[in-house]
Amino acid sequence: MTDRSCLAIILAAGLGTRMKSAMPKVMHAIGGHPMLGHVLETATRAGSDRIAVVIGPDMSPVESLVAATASSAVCFVQHERKGTAHAVLAARPALEAPVDDVIVLYGDTPLITAEAVETVRRALARGADIAVLGFEAADPSGYGRLLVEGGRLVAIREEKDATDSEREVSFCNSGIMGFRGALLPELLDAIGSDNAKGEFYLTDAVEIATGRGLTVVAETGPVEDVLGVNNRVQLAECEEIFQARMRRSAMLSGVTLVAPETVFFSYDTKLGADVVVEPNVVFGPGVSVSSGAVIHAFSHLEGAFVDEGASIGPYARLRPGAEIGQGAKIGNFVEVKKASVEAGAKVNHLSYIGDARVGAKANIGAGTITCNYDGYNKFFTDIGAGAFIGSNTALVAPVSIGDGALVAAGSVIVKDVPDDALAVARGQQVVKEGRAVSIRAIKERMSAERKK
Amino acid sequence: MTDRSCLAIILAAGLGTRMKSAMPKVMHAIGGHPMLGHVLETATRAGSDRIAVVIGPDMSPVESLVAATASSAVCFVQHERKGTAHAVLAARPALEAPVDDVIVLYGDTPLITAEAVETVRRALARGADIAVLGFEAADPSGYGRLLVEGGRLVAIREEKDATDSEREVSFCNSGIMGFRGALLPELLDAIGSDNAKGEFYLTDAVEIATGRGLTVVAETGPVEDVLGVNNRVQLAECEEIFQARMRRSAMLSGVTLVAPETVFFSYDTKLGADVVVEPNVVFGPGVSVSSGAVIHAFSHLEGAFVDEGASIGPYARLRPGAEIGQGAKIGNFVEVKKASVEAGAKVNHLSYIGDARVGAKANIGAGTITCNYDGYNKFFTDIGAGAFIGSNTALVAPVSIGDGALVAAGSVIVKDVPDDALAVARGQQVVKEGRAVSIRAIKERMSAERKK
Amino acid sequence: MTDRSCLAIILAAGLGTRMKSAMPKVMHAIGGHPMLGHVLETATRAGSDRIAVVIGPDMSPVESLVAATASSAVCFVQHERKGTAHAVLAARPALEAPVDDVIVLYGDTPLITAEAVETVRRALARGADIAVLGFEAADPSGYGRLLVEGGRLVAIREEKDATDSEREVSFCNSGIMGFRGALLPELLDAIGSDNAKGEFYLTDAVEIATGRGLTVVAETGPVEDVLGVNNRVQLAECEEIFQARMRRSAMLSGVTLVAPETVFFSYDTKLGADVVVEPNVVFGPGVSVSSGAVIHAFSHLEGAFVDEGASIGPYARLRPGAEIGQGAKIGNFVEVKKASVEAGAKVNHLSYIGDARVGAKANIGAGTITCNYDGYNKFFTDIGAGAFIGSNTALVAPVSIGDGALVAAGSVIVKDVPDDALAVARGQQVVKEGRAVSIRAIKERMSAERKK
Repeated sequence: MTDRSCLAIILAAGLGTRMKSAMPKVMHAIGGHPMLGHVLETATRAGSDRIAVVIGPDMSPVESLVAATASSAVCFVQHERKGTAHAVLAARPALEAPVDDVIVLYGDTPLITAEAVETVRRALARGADIAVLGFEAADPSGYGRLLVEGGRLVAIREEKDATDSEREVSFCNSGIMGFRGALLPELLDAIGSDNAKGEFYLTDAVEIATGRGLTVVAETGPVEDVLGVNNRVQLAECEEIFQARMRRSAMLSGVTLVAPETVFFSYDTKLGADVVVEPNVVFGPGVSVSSGAVIHAFSHLEGAFVDEGASIGPYARLRPGAEIGQGAKIGNFVEVKKASVEAGAKVNHLSYIGDARVGAKANIGAGTITCNYDGYNKFFTDIGAGAFIGSNTALVAPVSIGDGALVAAGSVIVKDVPDDALAVARGQQVVKEGRAVSIRAIKERMSAERKK
Repeated sequence: MTDRSCLAIILAAGLGTRMKSAMPKVMHAIGGHPMLGHVLETATRAGSDRIAVVIGPDMSPVESLVAATASSAVCFVQHERKGTAHAVLAARPALEAPVDDVIVLYGDTPLITAEAVETVRRALARGADIAVLGFEAADPSGYGRLLVEGGRLVAIREEKDATDSEREVSFCNSGIMGFRGALLPELLDAIGSDNAKGEFYLTDAVEIATGRGLTVVAETGPVEDVLGVNNRVQLAECEEIFQARMRRSAMLSGVTLVAPETVFFSYDTKLGADVVVEPNVVFGPGVSVSSGAVIHAFSHLEGAFVDEGASIGPYARLRPGAEIGQGAKIGNFVEVKKASVEAGAKVNHLSYIGDARVGAKANIGAGTITCNYDGYNKFFTDIGAGAFIGSNTALVAPVSIGDGALVAAGSVIVKDVPDDALAVARGQQVVKEGRAVSIRAIKERMSAERKK
Repeated sequence: MTDRSCLAIILAAGLGTRMKSAMPKVMHAIGGHPMLGHVLETATRAGSDRIAVVIGPDMSPVESLVAATASSAVCFVQHERKGTAHAVLAARPALEAPVDDVIVLYGDTPLITAEAVETVRRALARGADIAVLGFEAADPSGYGRLLVEGGRLVAIREEKDATDSEREVSFCNSGIMGFRGALLPELLDAIGSDNAKGEFYLTDAVEIATGRGLTVVAETGPVEDVLGVNNRVQLAECEEIFQARMRRSAMLSGVTLVAPETVFFSYDTKLGADVVVEPNVVFGPGVSVSSGAVIHAFSHLEGAFVDEGASIGPYARLRPGAEIGQGAKIGNFVEVKKASVEAGAKVNHLSYIGDARVGAKANIGAGTITCNYDGYNKFFTDIGAGAFIGSNTALVAPVSIGDGALVAAGSVIVKDVPDDALAVARGQQVVKEGRAVSIRAIKERMSAERKK
């Protein structure tokens, strides 16, 4: 593909009424990433030099996404919604510079793969003027049928206009099309709106080109690649296919997923060989797990790095900025945020480690909390290598616990503790013999009075 | 339907031996609600003026459920179990008052819909004397076949009595039947027990009526509506269909379910538009979530109200009486019970908020616990607007923290704190330099001795 | 079967390259138990008197597993990998003692059942010299076909050697074979390596035996029983079948699984009648739950015993050695390890109970932590019957709380508390009126400066 220039036009202006959402349709996510983001990345992977995204008015979140995802992409606003050809025309300025291939994609067809786009581009490279991507439908009803004769696509027939025998055709139109770049402007100009809705349809280009004796072909892609999203049931269906792809790919590369259907990936999740993932694990964006680490059941990771042989969970939550060192252990009901837990350290139970460093081989007792926030500012807690923090301890940041230091259980630490020092900060124990008897009597009386 | 009176007779006396349960079969739940409860509500929705529930002896929990669910329902006890007609006869007193339609339903057929019942009632309204609800079975083996000729139901043929060609009929009997009310008593009297088991079968009414030249018809309903539950595998199958219905309905109304198959609804769950529900969320009974709220993964809600734009979880547990205000945030490993967390307040980590109010924009530090129970009585904690509760704090109720007050981390608060006051209640920090070295030596020696 | 002696030869030497794992293939787990462990147990259940396991060089973890699982099993090392017959020959010493039946099984075919093995053994008992276990494949492509004529197996035809009509045969070879013991050594000697790979194939025994006029038959087993595992996708598929079997069996015996597909069993999980398991529960090895107990959503149990009527979770983690008494309650975000929680006791929230006893009817407040570890040694905490431990309490072990004793919230208990005594160990509350106002001003200033 490298010798041909390519412009991808992504149509993303649709209102998505059936999504019943205040958010533009193409911003709804698959694998933790907006649908349009997937399409932008696929367009880039398929060799697009430039990308034109056609959006609707007042879609600034879409513009921001485009700017953040693909530096070569430019947004064009379609002010009225008058059909797919009208939408492509909104990007007309992008067609002024000469280009070999123009590929039309859709922001609400998120599972499209670079392979499918390349199939279309290869047809153009072989000399086609237009190449339409089709798919074999188990149940074609509702789809436009691709009518092929002698290797040429002669028409795209809408369901309502089809004859009985045409309805039996199961080769359907995905909407994804490739055009010889030099040809597209004049084809767009030739498309009229003489139809029931008075709209301009890009599919009409096929008939126009055929009439002019141009070469129009249809290529085949997997049906899963071209699923469109019009409501949230379809969004969930696409998500499920996306997840199945990610799970299968992880397993084939040497990751054990005990119950793959219960593990949820983000688009960018990276898992090394011999990683074991138990049931019910959610990977938010930005997670990388090294070989041999075990992610136990009910864990939730996001923006986190887990080094070799570490053990996470069950019920561990790693938030952005969590870096878990080799062989370190994060146990149940533990939250780690913007903190490094160095090699061999253990945070086994019921703790919050935020804005902190836990030194190598340090042991953090159950119920330890780094008090990192004062309501206005965040402060850092530094815990030295080999330190031992007794259970139920509050470390009031900014504070530093030295290497090998020891903090007694139940302490509230507000001042730095030097290396190898012992720190205790708790009340004296007072015992009043027999006193529980009278207290119980008082409670019982109160309880009885409440019931009156 | 409104111009015709209707009596629903629900058969609920079955022992359910194959459930292998100490609980009556119809009390087993679908969507957090007993099967019989679903049928009672469907009968009411389908326009029943009166409901007669036929139960077995010693089924007081069933009686309580009936009383609590449908005020128009009366229970009748079937003392012996001698077939479906015998069961209907147990409700004979309910037949004394004149009624247009009598519909026979089953307490162990929980997915029946009002639409299906109305299909039967419409047949009666059109003049049928009996209308049987049938369904098309992919595999009809084991079911009674509905034999229809010239638009009339001529017989219900049991599998064992069917000819080879009759066995090929895939139109099967659901057991659900409608009767012209005036006719049912004499049909019941005519049903005999001259069969292998010596029981009285309601299906025999079809042959008797046909013999008398009455009009008997069969209507069709979806197979999912008429699934019966005889063991816990079938109970789980019905639960799955129920969940699929709830999930689909939520998604079509504008709720994002990232992984619908991992979200569990109760029969009365209410979710607003643009609510996002991440994977692995359980909604117990009595939950209502307003628009734009996000329910993160691994959350569990029951009897809770979540206002617009609030963020719940991951790993949040909202118990009955939890009311989460606009834009408030309940984070991980947080339990809220019978407490209101007002607009913009944050309870982000590892806390228990029970019998309490958290004022608007208050910030509750990690590890905060409302000590609401003394073993006998529950007490209230009131936290003012804008208050800041430092981490690892115990608030011993009854206690009140004023607006804008500040509680230092690690405190045990036993007395009220005025507005804008600072409260500290913790031990002094004592540091003993180098002391950790000798303590480590002692621990090591003890460890070595233990291993001897 | 009892009158016939049996030797099972389990082939477990495969490298499992496609697993992409540092661990030998047969050590990968199904239901929390290595695949080979399942096959060893099945061989024993099917009446094998002796078991020979053929392993590869340097597979000491496999040897350890064999020794731990089946006392009658001996390992033999296959030093080169030259086909299945070559692998069986590695176990030749085991064939020296006379035996009636020899059954060849595979360490990577973990779902094989005793029933399937017995089917093969019955064929030998009826006089067959060789019996091959086949299965009906929906899609036979890739499998060797079993060609049967006149009740005899005449050949095992590999896909590549099959004629078109042979390819239509859907009866396929599982690889599992039974041999008349006296015959196997000479058959093995007769198998050559005159084939593309130069390997010795056990299936060649069929042709050799047929040529000698011996009786060779094929038996049929369920396809699920003979699935082999070559990569982690197939491992997950076998896990899913295993889980489906366990779930179905539990439900039919009277356990309610609200969402069976979200409950994960280990090979040895035991659940009593009328146990209810909510969605998303993981049972690690060694769990036994008695009748009427409820395991709420998101719970994780391993090596734990739960007595009648107890309530576990949601979000409860029971680790090895947890013993939960009759009617006791373990609530959310609670971890119990090597501890007994006696009848009627409650640990409702956010606690860690490790190396401890919680006496009958004791109440453990939220945020209670047994500080059982000093970095080197574990110590015991003993809590008496009816004791009340206030919230956010640290119990520094070794320590004992007497029957009926009362510990005030927020205490750090370091000394024993006698029966019926009250213990308090916390700081005094100091309140500074209005002080929060000036502190807020300082924080705000710092926040502003940070942003500069």
